[in-house]
Amino acid sequence: MSQRIAVVGGVAAGPAAAAEAKRVDPAADVVLFERGGRISYGACEIPYFIDGKLGDIETLVLFSPEKFERKKGVVVHTGTEVVELNQGRGRIGLREVAGGRKWDERFDKVILAVGAEPVIPDVEGIDAENVLTVRDLDDASAIRDAVAQISERPSGSYLPSRIVVVGGGYIGVEMADVLATLGHLVTLLQPGGRLLPGYLDDSLSTRFTEHVAGIVSVRDERLTRVIRDPAGRVMAVEMSAGERIGCSLVILAAGVRPNTVLAERAGIRLGTTGAIQVSDRMKTSSPHVWACGDCIEVIRIPDGRPVHVPLSPTAYRTARVAARNAASRGRSAVSRFDGVTPASAVRAFGFEVATAGLTLQQATESDIEADSVEIRHLSRVGLLPEARPLFVTLVFERRTGRLLGGQLLGEEGAALRANVLVPLIRGRAHVSDIEPLDLVYAPPIAPSLDPLYIAARAAARSLNGARR
Amino acid sequence: MSQRIAVVGGVAAGPAAAAEAKRVDPAADVVLFERGGRISYGACEIPYFIDGKLGDIETLVLFSPEKFERKKGVVVHTGTEVVELNQGRGRIGLREVAGGRKWDERFDKVILAVGAEPVIPDVEGIDAENVLTVRDLDDASAIRDAVAQISERPSGSYLPSRIVVVGGGYIGVEMADVLATLGHLVTLLQPGGRLLPGYLDDSLSTRFTEHVAGIVSVRDERLTRVIRDPAGRVMAVEMSAGERIGCSLVILAAGVRPNTVLAERAGIRLGTTGAIQVSDRMKTSSPHVWACGDCIEVIRIPDGRPVHVPLSPTAYRTARVAARNAASRGRSAVSRFDGVTPASAVRAFGFEVATAGLTLQQATESDIEADSVEIRHLSRVGLLPEARPLFVTLVFERRTGRLLGGQLLGEEGAALRANVLVPLIRGRAHVSDIEPLDLVYAPPIAPSLDPLYIAARAAARSLNGARR
Repeated sequence: MSQRIAVVGGVAAGPAAAAEAKRVDPAADVVLFERGGRISYGACEIPYFIDGKLGDIETLVLFSPEKFERKKGVVVHTGTEVVELNQGRGRIGLREVAGGRKWDERFDKVILAVGAEPVIPDVEGIDAENVLTVRDLDDASAIRDAVAQISERPSGSYLPSRIVVVGGGYIGVEMADVLATLGHLVTLLQPGGRLLPGYLDDSLSTRFTEHVAGIVSVRDERLTRVIRDPAGRVMAVEMSAGERIGCSLVILAAGVRPNTVLAERAGIRLGTTGAIQVSDRMKTSSPHVWACGDCIEVIRIPDGRPVHVPLSPTAYRTARVAARNAASRGRSAVSRFDGVTPASAVRAFGFEVATAGLTLQQATESDIEADSVEIRHLSRVGLLPEARPLFVTLVFERRTGRLLGGQLLGEEGAALRANVLVPLIRGRAHVSDIEPLDLVYAPPIAPSLDPLYIAARAAARSLNGARR
Repeated sequence: MSQRIAVVGGVAAGPAAAAEAKRVDPAADVVLFERGGRISYGACEIPYFIDGKLGDIETLVLFSPEKFERKKGVVVHTGTEVVELNQGRGRIGLREVAGGRKWDERFDKVILAVGAEPVIPDVEGIDAENVLTVRDLDDASAIRDAVAQISERPSGSYLPSRIVVVGGGYIGVEMADVLATLGHLVTLLQPGGRLLPGYLDDSLSTRFTEHVAGIVSVRDERLTRVIRDPAGRVMAVEMSAGERIGCSLVILAAGVRPNTVLAERAGIRLGTTGAIQVSDRMKTSSPHVWACGDCIEVIRIPDGRPVHVPLSPTAYRTARVAARNAASRGRSAVSRFDGVTPASAVRAFGFEVATAGLTLQQATESDIEADSVEIRHLSRVGLLPEARPLFVTLVFERRTGRLLGGQLLGEEGAALRANVLVPLIRGRAHVSDIEPLDLVYAPPIAPSLDPLYIAARAAARSLNGARR
């Protein structure tokens, strides 16, 4: 008899898991449930679409439900929420979002891919109009419309309206960049006043923040209140110290947290990060339930710590592992997930920022005695006028010299260089293992001794010095 | 008693070796001998200086002899050729290039860093005026002057003069690009008609060549004769099939060969490539003689074959190893060179080309049963107008799936991605080890699934298909 597999969540990991499950067991009935109206879209591209220049936001949809059904052989139910996983033996509880109709269906296996939700600051007035998150395509449309409205005010009648972006992580920084490029006055709120704090240690974060602060206002403040005009629209925000800033739009980009409502209701075990705990086969604590994507925690390499890594490549990879194990029926080889070395990058305000592995702060939090070095080198051969400063930080274990992470910042050549560190960190390389790589050299591409090499040499010197 | 160390050759590896020897043994007398008038310069940057826009060619000199002596504590003799290594016990024979005076001096140790020489085609007329190599700064000045002279002809009197570039390797391609950008008509001669044949297999080489052939004339021809005007200047070249092309300048970029005259005279063993054979400590077959840089052969990873790799990062690395071993006097740890995974890149004609490890052809020549896959993906998220096609070839061992090499071609994002392959190839990774890397993703930097990932997946499929 053919097995029935329910996949819950239709944004990125869900469709990937559903398609993979059907590939592994073409005889299975695979059904994808999505609460919203669309499936299979890229949420990370939203900042690039809010100016309207790249066309309609619907472009971000890779597959319509119909196309996904046709191409992948998966049944798709949009507008359908899964509200219960243990609705009797092998049954899951469903609810039609529009009409509220409830029913249940039998499934042999369930794959949870319910993603993460934006963190909404719990402050007065947060539900005002024009206070928007950057989660889905409806958000994207709302932001685009609000921005268009602000931009269309009769010339001369107002200064460009101020927009407040809450949160200085990747999405906050990208949104602030796009909005500033459109000519708006932007205030970026980040407690601590350092941008990208989860990705960069103090020094590079401060360098980047100082650059950004020349273009938008960066405030070491928390949002404490949203003030509405009589029509219910935001007209100002209040910050920690009581100061108010007038604004006509607030973008909430204060991070995400795993969506665990359904899992908790089913008694599925969460991990230390608050995300769903899974085995290396993406199995949850509940029989017949697997999970993947932004709702789970994964093991971080090199420190073995469970972490919540809401990054697209990791979401896709855990989706494939979950689907292979869920669908295999013991016929094919078990698929395992051996952990993730988080690597990410952003291009904003004319700079590239990238990170791989652990920051010094993360290493310290994991009780590793770590050190770091920072060097300044160049993106290309220095004699070329296009050469730009490139800053590299390497983080390494003090006792062994093991490479733990790296951060790069520069106008060019930073992001893709972070990728070189990933196989090294995964392979438990020593900082001195970077020296013999003989990375590519060509005057318009890289200096004769690559910035990563220069950084590795500084790290080796620091280690030798520490030992003497 | 302090030891005396002679370093022969002053371009790149020589100064690096001399400085390192002095660092290792500050009491040593380290003397650097250079036949030419300058030391310590970047020859790889020459193509970028011939248009005169980046300033004087002397800018390419990193250290004047005086500055090098002052900063590094090394004695420098320019205009001095080492003509004999075994001039009696511990003595080397020297000759003043200008005056011809000969003498000899005692040294305890010698480090050869005599580099490589451009291959000069052995054809009639090759010594004509305006037939120039791209070796040193005198060549660079001569090319710049010749190009300036051609460019300054009264407007309207002639069409832009044709320039023939002999050789379609990196230097030939870079020179052709620069000259075409200056508005000259360029003909590029490469037997076989495929550019960068030592770096790219057929498919990517053909793609690149077809693009370049839309800008300059690429001919599957060998240079057979240079025809001079009555003043002795080149006026045309003759090619394999007897066809003649009128031209006012010929650039010889038909590769380099190791400079082994001095080593051979001293009875030092050469390897199968014709370059000086050295141990993993950079020791030659002669007592007290080490060698490094472009005059030696090194072991290639992953195939263990001795190869001649005239690349700058490798030259610097072998120089440091040679110097540490030559200067150590048994006091410090032995420094070993474990081989090179050649990686290189070029940016020309609006494209980046990069290669790491072995091409399929090189793998086959090394008797490895290898396969390759080629994919076409994008440099960034496809919805962004800046996204450009990126072609990736991966080469792998058929039986084991071991990654042997990779090639990339695209308008952006090709060169630095090749670096990711280097630690993997050195670490004997399987093509499937690329999948779990979760390389950086950001819309303006890389698609959600990196082109390297897509290529690795294609390679894994090809392996699985082959096994069924």
